[in-house]
Order: sequence, then C-alpha cells, then structure tokens
Amino acid sequence: MYILYNDTIMPRHLFRVDLEDRGYQFGDGIYEVIRFYDRVPFELEAHLRRLAASAEAIRIPLPVSLERLGENIGKLIGENSIQSGIIYIQLTRGVAPRGHLFPAAAQPVLTGYLTPVERPVAHLEQGIAAITTEDIRWLRVDIKTINLLPNILAKQQAHEAGAHEAIFVRNGTVTEGSSSNLFGIRDGVCYTHPANHLILNGITRQVVLRLLNSVGLKLREEAIPHTELYRMDEVFITSTVQEVCPVIRIDGQPVGEGKPGAFTRALQSAFEQAIGTSQSAATP
Amino acid sequence: MYILYNDTIMPRHLFRVDLEDRGYQFGDGIYEVIRFYDRVPFELEAHLRRLAASAEAIRIPLPVSLERLGENIGKLIGENSIQSGIIYIQLTRGVAPRGHLFPAAAQPVLTGYLTPVERPVAHLEQGIAAITTEDIRWLRVDIKTINLLPNILAKQQAHEAGAHEAIFVRNGTVTEGSSSNLFGIRDGVCYTHPANHLILNGITRQVVLRLLNSVGLKLREEAIPHTELYRMDEVFITSTVQEVCPVIRIDGQPVGEGKPGAFTRALQSAFEQAIGTSQSAATP
Repeated sequence: MYILYNDTIMPRHLFRVDLEDRGYQFGDGIYEVIRFYDRVPFELEAHLRRLAASAEAIRIPLPVSLERLGENIGKLIGENSIQSGIIYIQLTRGVAPRGHLFPAAAQPVLTGYLTPVERPVAHLEQGIAAITTEDIRWLRVDIKTINLLPNILAKQQAHEAGAHEAIFVRNGTVTEGSSSNLFGIRDGVCYTHPANHLILNGITRQVVLRLLNSVGLKLREEAIPHTELYRMDEVFITSTVQEVCPVIRIDGQPVGEGKPGAFTRALQSAFEQAIGTSQSAATP
Repeated sequence: MYILYNDTIMPRHLFRVDLEDRGYQFGDGIYEVIRFYDRVPFELEAHLRRLAASAEAIRIPLPVSLERLGENIGKLIGENSIQSGIIYIQLTRGVAPRGHLFPAAAQPVLTGYLTPVERPVAHLEQGIAAITTEDIRWLRVDIKTINLLPNILAKQQAHEAGAHEAIFVRNGTVTEGSSSNLFGIRDGVCYTHPANHLILNGITRQVVLRLLNSVGLKLREEAIPHTELYRMDEVFITSTVQEVCPVIRIDGQPVGEGKPGAFTRALQSAFEQAIGTSQSAATP
C-alpha cells in the first residue's frame, strides 16, 4: 500500500509518525475525508479549499500548493488498486520537543492514504436510528481539526443505544451529528443549522443546499429546537461517507411515518446524479 | 535515549507511532506530565491515580497495572542519565482502521519518555505577565486528554501579546490557565475555581490547597469573576512544570503592587519544602 507524505508517494511500511509529532501529543492538526467513486474524487476542489481554510485557521502552513496536493491525490489513486473509497488527508504542525507554543523550526507533516469503502446502501435504503446528546464540544467546530474525542464519545454512545448517529444539542437547539450535518423538513421547508462556529460546514451539506430547489424544497438555515426535532416530517443527515442518509427514529421515536420520506428520496436521487455528473465530467 | 512502550523499555529510534494510531487521528488518548527532581518523581502516586481516572473516563484500558507503570517509570529514570526534568506519559486507544467507534481489537499504546527541564527560576523569582481569553474548550476539561488545540492557541495568543500564560474566562468567570490552575488572594482569602468539569484538577493545585493553612490563608473554592481578577491582592498559577508562579500583570494591568506578593512567596517556600520532603522520603 502506498501513502502520501508531504510531496512523496511512498510505501506505507516505510513511513513513521514521530512520538513528538504535535498531532500525536496535542491533536495539533487538521484533516479531510474525500470520497472517490470509480477512481474519481468527488468535490475535490471544495475539500482542498476547506483543508487550506482549516490549516490557515490554526496557522499551519501547507507543505505543498493545493494544486500539487490535488495532483498527488491523483497519483495516490494511480499507485493503489482501490476502485471506490475514501482519501484521508491529515496535516499536523510537525515534530518538535513538546511545548504548547508553535515551534519555530517544525516542518508540517502532511499524510494521505486510501481506504476502500462501499456506499452505505442498506442505510441509504432503510434509514438509520439516532439519539440526541448534549453538544459539549469546543466553540470552533467549524475548523476541521483532529481534536475529535467528543465526537468519538458521542458516536460510541449512539452505538451502545442501538443507534447509528448521535445528534448534538447545544442550549436546546440541534447543531449537527457527531460525524454529519443534520437537516429537518416540515411543510416543504428544509431547516439546517447555519454554517457558523457551531457546526462543521460539510461538503455534502453544501452540495445538498444546491439541490434543495430542484426537488421543491425551500431552505431555512436556522437551528431546529430540540423539541421540534421530533415533529419534523423528515430528517436526514449528510456526510462524505454517509451521503444523504434518512433518519427514521430519534431517541426511540419514529420520525414522520418511521420510514424515509419523499423529499429525502428525491434528494438522494439528485445527489446520485451529482456523483454521476462529477464522474462523467472527469472522464474525457 | 530510552523510552517506555507499554511494558518495555526500548531505544527511542526503534519505536514508531502508526499512522492509524487513534491518538494521531482523533486525539483519542490521555496523558500525564510528572516532575522528577534529582531522579525522584514528585507526587508520583497522585499522577498515576489521575492517569487511571482519565483513562477510565474515556474507557481506555491500561496495558499494565499502575504499580507496574510506577516501576517502569523508575526503570526509565534508571536507563537515562537525566538528573531533573519531566516524565511524559501518554496512553492512546491504539491502532485500528479509522472510524469513530471504539475498535474491538485495538491494543492501547502507552508511551513514556524523559526530558531534562530546569526549574523556571526567573519566572518564580520575578513573576509573569498573563492575558485573559475566552474559554472555548469542551465541557470535560477535567479529563486530561490530548485534545489540546484550544490550549495551544491560547498559549500562543499570550506569547504574541508578550505574556507567558493565557487565563481562560468562561461566562464571565475565571476557570484556569491554558496549562495551569489559577489562584487569587484577597484579604487573606485564597480563591480558586472548584474542581469540576470546567478545570483540570492539577496535582500541584492539590499540593497547594494542602499548604494554604500553613501560610495563614483561608480557602474559598469559588470561581473569580473576570472583573474581580484585576482587583486581587495577589494572583499565582500552579502546574507541574511552573510550580507556584506569581502573576504580576494581567492584560497589561499590575496585580497588587505589580510584584510577587507575600502570601505567594510563603507558598513558594512551603512548596519547595514539599519537594525536598518528597526527595528525602524517597532516599533510604
């Protein structure tokens, strides 16, 4: 298996993370998860732009240009034999003797590798159950950092409750899922939390916002009160891996009729078309 | 240089962190920094107990017993030639294909190594300047996790403002420093934030609480309002590395007379005695 390290494609077993990599000791880094279908990355440019924005927010310089990183991701797909899956890219501030201050001399460490991942067909078809849980994360979750412990703990809590996603609630309003954005539909209006410091503005979220109109939905970027969440006609989550996934139960209560709703189905179709378009656009 | 890896002392250059160590990808781990003076760890048992408590809070099993870990720390000091410094111990959930849920098969990774560190004599003598900044951390900072990005950013902000520590303020009250606990003294009463989910209950903090009485201070474990912070007679911070360190300026304003106060000096002496006692107690 080949991985990307800064500007080099190399065998995974030759790469080592240092004990004093600030990613390991402080979570001092950021990341992206990029989907590729049939060897073509989906929304690559949007992911690269967000990577650059995250890096800038915590002031880690990129070791290569975004253009070069995009080329290297292409090479990485070329060097591996995986047809469809995800590209995981991580950037840390680099290796330095442990200390809170930004080190003067550290060289950023950018790594990337591929994992085969199937589309989550059963979840997309049948929908998933979710729980709600208190959003105790820090107040800059708009930066896609590797400080993900609260997300892990929430996802694990959902799993142990027999659910697939944990929906965060802060001060009585819904923010997003532990690894997804959340949308609720009522009376033909689609509600989702505005893209501020309290959510991570997902690339799939942005794609879906562009598709709403085509399926006859109006958008209100406004946080859903916790109590109103149970009264939505339809609820769905979005993420790079989970795509547009219906939520059919929340905290044990059925959403709408307890099955994927018509608008969600329409959005799923529109999203599949977007995936297809992206692929044919990339094929000469 | 020798490091500790689970139950083994090994040369540092032979150890590698895996790219998919959850510490690297999620900050899914906890840590301790333990001071040793003249080859004797200070408050070792208290640090080990807290390590176990942090690990339990996020459900990472310890790869060895606390007793064994204590022995291994002794061996690590024996194998290295450092006289005084810190022992850094980190525990992550281990290596597994990336995914939020706790992996079934991962083996926790415990690492430890020594760094020579002098006592911060100039700071202890002259005191330091600090700034205040909004506490945007998650709501379980009582767990000593490696999700430290907000702490890094606050410390860097202090540095760039010409100060040495950032004091966190949440909802108008002082919580603690970016890598320390904070105490304020007024009219013979010592105030510090109660040890709940909003602060990390420092080992040095706990030592200082036991010493207050001996220097004639009364304790009130109660958060200091931000506006009152500037009106304290004395302010100091505590940490394993910074010990009992006077804060003589906050946001550019002098604390009291702008020099270390008498109670702080008395506490420093009492603390030095505690260090000495610990060492002679360990010497047969």
